[in-house]
Amino acid sequence: MLALTMGDPAGIGGEIALGAWTALREDETPFVMLADPRWLSGMAGGRGIAVRPVDSVEEAGRVFAEALPVLPVPLPAPAIPGHPNPANGSAVTASIERAVRLATENRVGGIVTNPISKIVLKRAGFAHPGHTEFLGALTGQAGREVMMLAGPSLRVVPVTVHLSLRDAIDKLSTDLIVSVARTAAASLRRDFGIASPRLAVAGLNPHAGENGLMGEEERTLVAPAIAALRAEGIEVIGPLPPDTMFTALQRERYDAAICMYHDQALIPLKTLDMAHGVNVTIGLDLVRTSPDHGTAFDIAGRHVADPTSLISAIRLADIIRRNRARANRSHA
Amino acid sequence: MLALTMGDPAGIGGEIALGAWTALREDETPFVMLADPRWLSGMAGGRGIAVRPVDSVEEAGRVFAEALPVLPVPLPAPAIPGHPNPANGSAVTASIERAVRLATENRVGGIVTNPISKIVLKRAGFAHPGHTEFLGALTGQAGREVMMLAGPSLRVVPVTVHLSLRDAIDKLSTDLIVSVARTAAASLRRDFGIASPRLAVAGLNPHAGENGLMGEEERTLVAPAIAALRAEGIEVIGPLPPDTMFTALQRERYDAAICMYHDQALIPLKTLDMAHGVNVTIGLDLVRTSPDHGTAFDIAGRHVADPTSLISAIRLADIIRRNRARANRSHA
Repeated sequence: MLALTMGDPAGIGGEIALGAWTALREDETPFVMLADPRWLSGMAGGRGIAVRPVDSVEEAGRVFAEALPVLPVPLPAPAIPGHPNPANGSAVTASIERAVRLATENRVGGIVTNPISKIVLKRAGFAHPGHTEFLGALTGQAGREVMMLAGPSLRVVPVTVHLSLRDAIDKLSTDLIVSVARTAAASLRRDFGIASPRLAVAGLNPHAGENGLMGEEERTLVAPAIAALRAEGIEVIGPLPPDTMFTALQRERYDAAICMYHDQALIPLKTLDMAHGVNVTIGLDLVRTSPDHGTAFDIAGRHVADPTSLISAIRLADIIRRNRARANRSHA
Repeated sequence: MLALTMGDPAGIGGEIALGAWTALREDETPFVMLADPRWLSGMAGGRGIAVRPVDSVEEAGRVFAEALPVLPVPLPAPAIPGHPNPANGSAVTASIERAVRLATENRVGGIVTNPISKIVLKRAGFAHPGHTEFLGALTGQAGREVMMLAGPSLRVVPVTVHLSLRDAIDKLSTDLIVSVARTAAASLRRDFGIASPRLAVAGLNPHAGENGLMGEEERTLVAPAIAALRAEGIEVIGPLPPDTMFTALQRERYDAAICMYHDQALIPLKTLDMAHGVNVTIGLDLVRTSPDHGTAFDIAGRHVADPTSLISAIRLADIIRRNRARANRSHA
C-alpha cells in the first residue's frame, strides 16, 4: 500500500489521481489518498468513479478494487480549479505530513506526492525550498535527500537543483558531487536492484571544458570527484561533454547521469519522454516518488490532464518498496 | 555546386566525404572538395571510389557523377588517422580560405566544412575561437556570424557559444539576445523559406526563474529582449522554462529556439537526433553548413564514421542556396 498526497487542490492532482486509480485498480499496487473526499467526489461524479472515505490504511486496502480510498484531510476553503488559495495551504501540507507519518510508522510502503505550488505555499508560510527538502525535514534526515528523475531510458541526478544557474555554479564543489553521486550509486543498488551501478558524471562547461579552453571546473572540481568515487569502488565515467552524453548510444554506458545543474539533467529527460518521467527522492529511508510535472493550473478542471507520469510514479514507488523489502530479507 | 573543405586530415573528414559522395552522386547536389588528392585516393582505393583532381569548379561539375572531384590543397606532412599534426594546420586553413574565396566570387553557391580541431590549429598559430568566427573574419563580416544547429525536428540558436558557463552568463545581455534572435528570424525567412518565422526564447534559470525565485535574468535581460523583438514585428514566445520547451508538443510552437548558452541548445538537439544535426552559420552573405560533430580522432581510419550529418549538411547548404536564389529572383 502507498499513500498519495493531495497536492494543490486548485491544480490537476485530483483529476490525475482519479485517472491513476482507473488505470491501477486491477493491479497489485493499491494506494490511499490523503485529501478532502468531498473535493474528490465532486470531480469523480461525472466520470463514474467511486470515491470512498476510509478510516484506516487497512480499510483502504479492502475497498481499493471498488473505489478510490481517501483518508480525509478537510479543505478549509473551496478549491477552484486554476485559482490556488493560500487558505488551503495548511491542508496541502497536512496531507504531506500525514503521508510521511504513515510511512515512518510502516503503515504504508512509501508515498507518492501530487504537485504543489511553491509560490502559493510560500504565501501560506511554508519555509522550505520545495517538496524534497520538506520531506528531508519531516523525516529527521534533512540534508540527505537527493532528487533523481527517472524516465524509461534515462535516469538523471542533478547535483544542484532549485537555484539560479549562477548560484548553482557557485555551489558546485567536489564534496557535493561525491556526496550526490554516492547517494545515487546506493539508490541504484537498493532501490533499483542494480548490483554494480555505473555512473556517468557530466562536465559543467561546453565540451566538458575542452582541456581548459572553456572552463576549469572539470579539472578542478569534477575530475577529483570522479577519482574519489572510483577510490570507493564506484564505477564512474566522465567528465563527459554534456551535449553528447544523452544520445541513445551513450545512455547504454551508464545507469544514471550525475548532472551539474537542474536543466542539464531535466532538458534531456523531458525532451526524451515528457509523459513517463518520475521524480524520486533518494537518500532517505522514506520511499517517495512524484510525477515530473507541476500543478498545471492552466488546464486544471478541464479533465484533460495526462495521468501517465503519476501512474509511472505510483508504479515506481511500488518497485522501490519491493526492491527494498527483498534486500532487507536477504540481509536478515 | 558547393565547396567541401578538408577538415583535420587526421580526423574522419576524408572518410565521410567519400561516404557523402557515394550517397549524393546521383542527386542534383554536386560538390567539390578542397583537399590533398593523394590523401583522399589512399582512403578511397579500398572502397572502389574514384577521386579525381580537377583544375576548376566547372571541371568538378562535369566529373561529379563519376568521381569525387578535388581541387588540390597539398598536405605538407603525412596524415596519420588519429594523430593530428600541427604541421598540416596551414593546409587545413588554406582549404577553408579557398572555399570561402570560391563562394565570395560566386563560383560555388556555398561551403560545407569538415571538422577541425581547435586545439591542433591553436598550436599551429590559428587565432580564432572556432570555424564560425574564422569565417566571419574571412568574409569581412566579423561579428555578424551566428551559429544555428538544425535537426529534423528542432532548430536551435545559442546566444553564446564557446565560453565557459560562467563566462556565458556574464556575456548575456538584452542587446545580444535581440541581435542573435533578429539574425535567426532573418535566416528563417531568407534561408529556410519561412515567411513568418516564430521564435521561442529560453529562460536562463530553472523554470525560467519562476517569477524571480531562482534568478532574475528572465526579468532583467530576457523579457526586455522579447519586448524589443515584438516591437520589430517578430513573433516571439518566452522566456520559456528550458526543461519543458523541447518536448514534441512545444516544438510545434516555434521554428527556432533562441538559447542562452551552448548546452541548453545542444543537449536537446543532439539528444533528439545525433546523426542528422547540421551546424549552419547564419548572418553572413556566405552560405555555410557543417556536420554537427568533431574530428572523431578516436575512430578515424577505421572507416566506421557515419557520414549522415555531413550528407545532411551538404543537402541543407543546397536548400539554403536555392532559397536565397529564389528570394533574389523574386526581389529582382
